[in-house]
Amino acid sequence: MTTTPRTPEAPVRFEDVKDAASLLAGRVHRTPVATSRQLDERAGASLHLKCENLQRTGAFKIRGALNALSRLSDAERGRGVLTYSSGNHAQAVALAGKITATKTTVIMPEGAPRIKRKATEGYGADVVPYDPERHSREELALARAAETGETIIPPYDHPHVVAGQGTAGLELFEHAGALDMLFVCCGGGGLLSGCALAARRLAPKCHVVGVEPEAGDDATRSFYSGTLQTVHNPDTIADGARTPYLGDITFPLVRACVDDMITVSDMELIRAMHFVWERMKLVIEPTGALALAGALSGKLDIKNKRIGVVVSGGNVDLAYAAELFARL
Amino acid sequence: MTTTPRTPEAPVRFEDVKDAASLLAGRVHRTPVATSRQLDERAGASLHLKCENLQRTGAFKIRGALNALSRLSDAERGRGVLTYSSGNHAQAVALAGKITATKTTVIMPEGAPRIKRKATEGYGADVVPYDPERHSREELALARAAETGETIIPPYDHPHVVAGQGTAGLELFEHAGALDMLFVCCGGGGLLSGCALAARRLAPKCHVVGVEPEAGDDATRSFYSGTLQTVHNPDTIADGARTPYLGDITFPLVRACVDDMITVSDMELIRAMHFVWERMKLVIEPTGALALAGALSGKLDIKNKRIGVVVSGGNVDLAYAAELFARL
Repeated sequence: MTTTPRTPEAPVRFEDVKDAASLLAGRVHRTPVATSRQLDERAGASLHLKCENLQRTGAFKIRGALNALSRLSDAERGRGVLTYSSGNHAQAVALAGKITATKTTVIMPEGAPRIKRKATEGYGADVVPYDPERHSREELALARAAETGETIIPPYDHPHVVAGQGTAGLELFEHAGALDMLFVCCGGGGLLSGCALAARRLAPKCHVVGVEPEAGDDATRSFYSGTLQTVHNPDTIADGARTPYLGDITFPLVRACVDDMITVSDMELIRAMHFVWERMKLVIEPTGALALAGALSGKLDIKNKRIGVVVSGGNVDLAYAAELFARL
Repeated sequence: MTTTPRTPEAPVRFEDVKDAASLLAGRVHRTPVATSRQLDERAGASLHLKCENLQRTGAFKIRGALNALSRLSDAERGRGVLTYSSGNHAQAVALAGKITATKTTVIMPEGAPRIKRKATEGYGADVVPYDPERHSREELALARAAETGETIIPPYDHPHVVAGQGTAGLELFEHAGALDMLFVCCGGGGLLSGCALAARRLAPKCHVVGVEPEAGDDATRSFYSGTLQTVHNPDTIADGARTPYLGDITFPLVRACVDDMITVSDMELIRAMHFVWERMKLVIEPTGALALAGALSGKLDIKNKRIGVVVSGGNVDLAYAAELFARL
């Protein structure tokens, strides 16, 4: 196989995704691909759901975090790693630290749900709270790392993180063959760009679609305008897609490898979530329902096509989910 | 392989389970076996959960129903089949009828949840309501079948039903190898006796345990006394295990092939359910949590053992489940 050179337009290559897959094999789950006759009847298409809700830590994030931590030198690992997240990336870095015997520290907003802080600490990370009204988490991380020598592992804008997330798409194509369309949720674009890299090589004709919440449509506008757009703290139940903008690495990758970006409403998310819980017996979080809601939205023609859908995670408070379902 | 003769003590044989597996291959799901490091740490054992909640119709019942309907003659199929159930067996017979092009009728209590009636009708069955205060469903079925010539497919006390349910256990042993212990829920004993038949042949040293709700402990008392015991309409959230007694076929099989029977409380069921929803991201119903709750109950020593757990189904109203979790 020829090796594509890395360029500013393509800072991560398919080969990096392949390398990540080799490194992750046996250390993260090769998650199942779920299908449902009822879903297919409803959609008029053949849908293949990649179940990253069944991944270790309950989300795809462990793929990127473990790929990144595993590629540090012994000296870097000795100094520890640092990240900022109140969500699935925090737990992923914490678990990756446990697996690779690396000290991990997570900068987390003071108001983060207690359950998320406890889960992150449960994997052995130190949690450092901060006041998001007064400080930027990125600046806090840079200042701290300058003192401690820790390596920062950001949630998405990092080549090893993107390559790791892409292994979810790689596995889906290996399982389901050349799909006609692939729907992937988009927050900072790590999962989307990684999966799109896999699609471009393994199914060149596959139409790759990123899906965002309506209220946080920065990536969709960035994609179509070619200029980075921002939405701060959008009001959506898809908490994993509240990231304000694509990154320096993910923006060019999304532009180069993705075919379409669409948005869905919170009600569409709740309906998709409810279908998967009730009929497919899988617990998925609101962000995890983005891709399916996009496929079912009617914005793109999926009729009689073979569709891939990446279900990104399942970490949601069960009582909160019940409240969401009560809105239906 | 030698063929064991059928006897009154063993009215279903392992060979019947094998035959059912051949017949069902490709027509029902070979469901995944879920594992969880967190669960194993908590239990101090290695647990393998056979996910029949991910089976077609959301429960194992399709295995027995489809095995039974497939073995009817063309003439019998032409006259149609009849059953009585307000639960998972009703939907299973309805879908089996659709698959085998057999007319199906289900006798269902007038007060059955609308969602269950609709699901059963959705698969194409006719639903005949009856007043459970005034009539016995078995007698109604016999009277109707005498007129119509329909074949009755009861929920558990039927050799083809037992053999079909046993294929869940067969698949679990094929996947996980010789387990040290196997926990299976017990209502009428169809799933338990079928899986026990598989265990006796494929893992002779495996300790097979049936698990009942505390309030409906008829099978446990029958098992230990050797005399059939009855509990009518027990007060338990495990609606699939409210059956009043073991059957003529399942009782001798349970006595011959099962090693232990234990009971668990509703609170133990809710805790087990909650763990599987929250940590393993799988929707399971209260009855589906019986076997896991039994394994975690502390009544039997599971430490450092390889444990099989059959999760029987996932059909539960999501709002009702949220109410149950609020009791924790």
